[in-house]
Amino acid sequence: MGKEQFNVVKGTRDFGPQQVRERQYIIQAIKQVFEKFGFQPLETPTMERLSVLTGKYGDEGDELLFRILNSGEFLKPTSQDDYNNGEKALSGKIAEKGLRYDLTVPFARYVTNNRNDLAFPFKRYQIQPVWRADKPQRGRYREFYQCDADVIGTNSLLCEAEVILMINEVLTTLGINDFTIKLNNRKILEGICDVSGTSEQFTNVVVAIDKLDKIGKEKVSEELMSKGISSDQANQIFELIEGDINTLKVAFENSEVGTKGIEEIEEVFSYLPQENNTNFDIALARGLSYYTGCIYEVAVNNVKIGSISGGGRYDNLTGGFGMEGVSGVGFSFGLDRIYDVLSELELFPNLEASSTKVIMIAFDQESFKYSVPVLGQLRAAGIKSELYPDVVKMKKSMKYANNRNIPNVILIGGNEMETGLLTLKNMITGEQENLSIPKIIEKLQE
Amino acid sequence: MGKEQFNVVKGTRDFGPQQVRERQYIIQAIKQVFEKFGFQPLETPTMERLSVLTGKYGDEGDELLFRILNSGEFLKPTSQDDYNNGEKALSGKIAEKGLRYDLTVPFARYVTNNRNDLAFPFKRYQIQPVWRADKPQRGRYREFYQCDADVIGTNSLLCEAEVILMINEVLTTLGINDFTIKLNNRKILEGICDVSGTSEQFTNVVVAIDKLDKIGKEKVSEELMSKGISSDQANQIFELIEGDINTLKVAFENSEVGTKGIEEIEEVFSYLPQENNTNFDIALARGLSYYTGCIYEVAVNNVKIGSISGGGRYDNLTGGFGMEGVSGVGFSFGLDRIYDVLSELELFPNLEASSTKVIMIAFDQESFKYSVPVLGQLRAAGIKSELYPDVVKMKKSMKYANNRNIPNVILIGGNEMETGLLTLKNMITGEQENLSIPKIIEKLQE
Repeated sequence: MGKEQFNVVKGTRDFGPQQVRERQYIIQAIKQVFEKFGFQPLETPTMERLSVLTGKYGDEGDELLFRILNSGEFLKPTSQDDYNNGEKALSGKIAEKGLRYDLTVPFARYVTNNRNDLAFPFKRYQIQPVWRADKPQRGRYREFYQCDADVIGTNSLLCEAEVILMINEVLTTLGINDFTIKLNNRKILEGICDVSGTSEQFTNVVVAIDKLDKIGKEKVSEELMSKGISSDQANQIFELIEGDINTLKVAFENSEVGTKGIEEIEEVFSYLPQENNTNFDIALARGLSYYTGCIYEVAVNNVKIGSISGGGRYDNLTGGFGMEGVSGVGFSFGLDRIYDVLSELELFPNLEASSTKVIMIAFDQESFKYSVPVLGQLRAAGIKSELYPDVVKMKKSMKYANNRNIPNVILIGGNEMETGLLTLKNMITGEQENLSIPKIIEKLQE
Repeated sequence: MGKEQFNVVKGTRDFGPQQVRERQYIIQAIKQVFEKFGFQPLETPTMERLSVLTGKYGDEGDELLFRILNSGEFLKPTSQDDYNNGEKALSGKIAEKGLRYDLTVPFARYVTNNRNDLAFPFKRYQIQPVWRADKPQRGRYREFYQCDADVIGTNSLLCEAEVILMINEVLTTLGINDFTIKLNNRKILEGICDVSGTSEQFTNVVVAIDKLDKIGKEKVSEELMSKGISSDQANQIFELIEGDINTLKVAFENSEVGTKGIEEIEEVFSYLPQENNTNFDIALARGLSYYTGCIYEVAVNNVKIGSISGGGRYDNLTGGFGMEGVSGVGFSFGLDRIYDVLSELELFPNLEASSTKVIMIAFDQESFKYSVPVLGQLRAAGIKSELYPDVVKMKKSMKYANNRNIPNVILIGGNEMETGLLTLKNMITGEQENLSIPKIIEKLQE
């Protein structure tokens, strides 16, 4: 093993002081909006039983789960045959736990387990990391944060409108103003299948349309036809997707589900302010299979990164855990995506304010001892302060103050102790003053 | 599989809204003190390579690591022989990653990896969960939070004093006033071994003395003798432990390391205020092998839970990663332990203030529509507010407001829409008033 044996695991990252502060800044903005809208915090464990996680994200998702080796004699329930039958046979017996893949499934598990104690509609937010054994690449990590808000236990379309309002408030709070919220409804996509006679291929149609942005119309058309959809049907699907709400209304005259989808979209818009940046987008499909009503996606315009948020309504998320017929709607911000957008647009404020405001530097042992209680006074006044812990050449300690970006230095030597006037140096302007301790406190509290 | 297939993993917990708020309250208090003392935040990944984690916590620690199964064809590098040779042989080949066991080793790994970019002394704090495959029992979890602060890159004993000051400030901020900080120095324990002729048994002596509180003098004595220490030596060890700083000074006349330990303790006390709740405790040993200087432990008096914090100085934490001779000192708060203490002493403040302040309840569809823009006005004024999302019997929506502990309700029906005066009900006093929207906002902002 070489030096890389001590690297971080591929696809994971350390976050140093500045990055933690920037990430916290985003999290705080999101939390404040979620709470203003009445959502309450929830935290679930990092590990879940694989019986909770598997079968919820499709085969591809199951493959991306990080599985945790059972403790102790994990081979005991296995046989030579299991080993010979390969990974799937063996892993089922030696790993019963996995890392959280998203926050939605643990939320559904929590709601089911606590259904007798929760007041419904239950509105929760959850800001925690998730893990996926994906191939790491630019902008895609194996450990990343999701920031979710969901309401469960009501069919009210006000909730859909509130998701849109929350997205708006979070992004504008962070200084992101040029973005578009795309809104569609799975029932409209159902209506399109209904009308084009492709209802039995619904999932395939959704999966194909979801790729329209990335691979283009021609390839999507090919994919549709490879699933047994005729070229006429494919053309009809595209025609409907490229239409607008009025052409759909006409087309859906005989499609109950399609008409319901249109009504839902119109009701959601009725709850929004006249001026809003929400676009009805018939081509929006979203990959996940559990959505049944409105679906969203948010794109920031004029940046490299595309979608930073998405979500939708689901009618039976808790069904897999034995709690049937409870409808909910939710969405998720990708913290790392938002981070990248704020970096690209240079929208982070100066967050240095939350770190050390002054460092004391003592010239010798005697002034070091003199400095200790002064440090106590500064902190008692609520000033974030430090004393350079060793007596060293001033060049070294000043360089340290500089590297740390600490904006003020207090210098203490024989003169300062004699007069009681300490030297306060502003590291940004270079200005230097001799001041009493109370005056220094006053100045630093400004 | 029965119903338990959807339970949380043994030894892990969900945290509902109230618990998250209480835990955040503790974390905020700790963070504020750490930052006031100049510590900066760090976050490291949940997973680390096992080459980083193993061999750092002793054999017992290695057994308690949660190992993550490699992705994909994890059996490829294995053979029938590996399977037949049992867990150890196989797990080395099928699991290369593990969950973080504490925050200290990832910190040392981070410092080593980033040594050229960090300003030393580097002061970092880190508040994250850790995982141990321990047998779950009351107060002991498999997933729990640690709150660490460490300074690395200086020998200054001011840092030891600052640890004590931080412990004091955090606990008093949280309202915990009756606690004792025990302070000792590994060099004093080395001196005791020196004087009693048991230096070669140093680790065994430390491990045995560490149990004095739990198993008593007689059992410790037995353990010492089982390690080849004579009864005379054991008696001398006890005599020294039961002495005080003055008897030690005399005993250490010919022990350089013991004398150094006493000097260090005295220097640390010289940096503390005259009045302090720090006790020099010669019997304090602490289990971890990497401590080389001062060691701490904090006990809250008159509660069931014992130690809530501990730490010490280490001279070579980064040595295992190839960065030699860098001394540091740190300590850790156990979040769950502090949580239990605050619960037992009933010291949590009312944290409801951070949740929804008012919920609007509409009598019919028309007043529901009327309510939507009013809700927007409340939120624009910064008031955490909700609209009950469905039109239901008032009994049901009022019960919901009650269950959620929402302190105010706004009732809206035909009368209210006509007059523009909405009914504001205080759910605590039962008081009810008819007020205009601006008046309601004013009142709720108070």
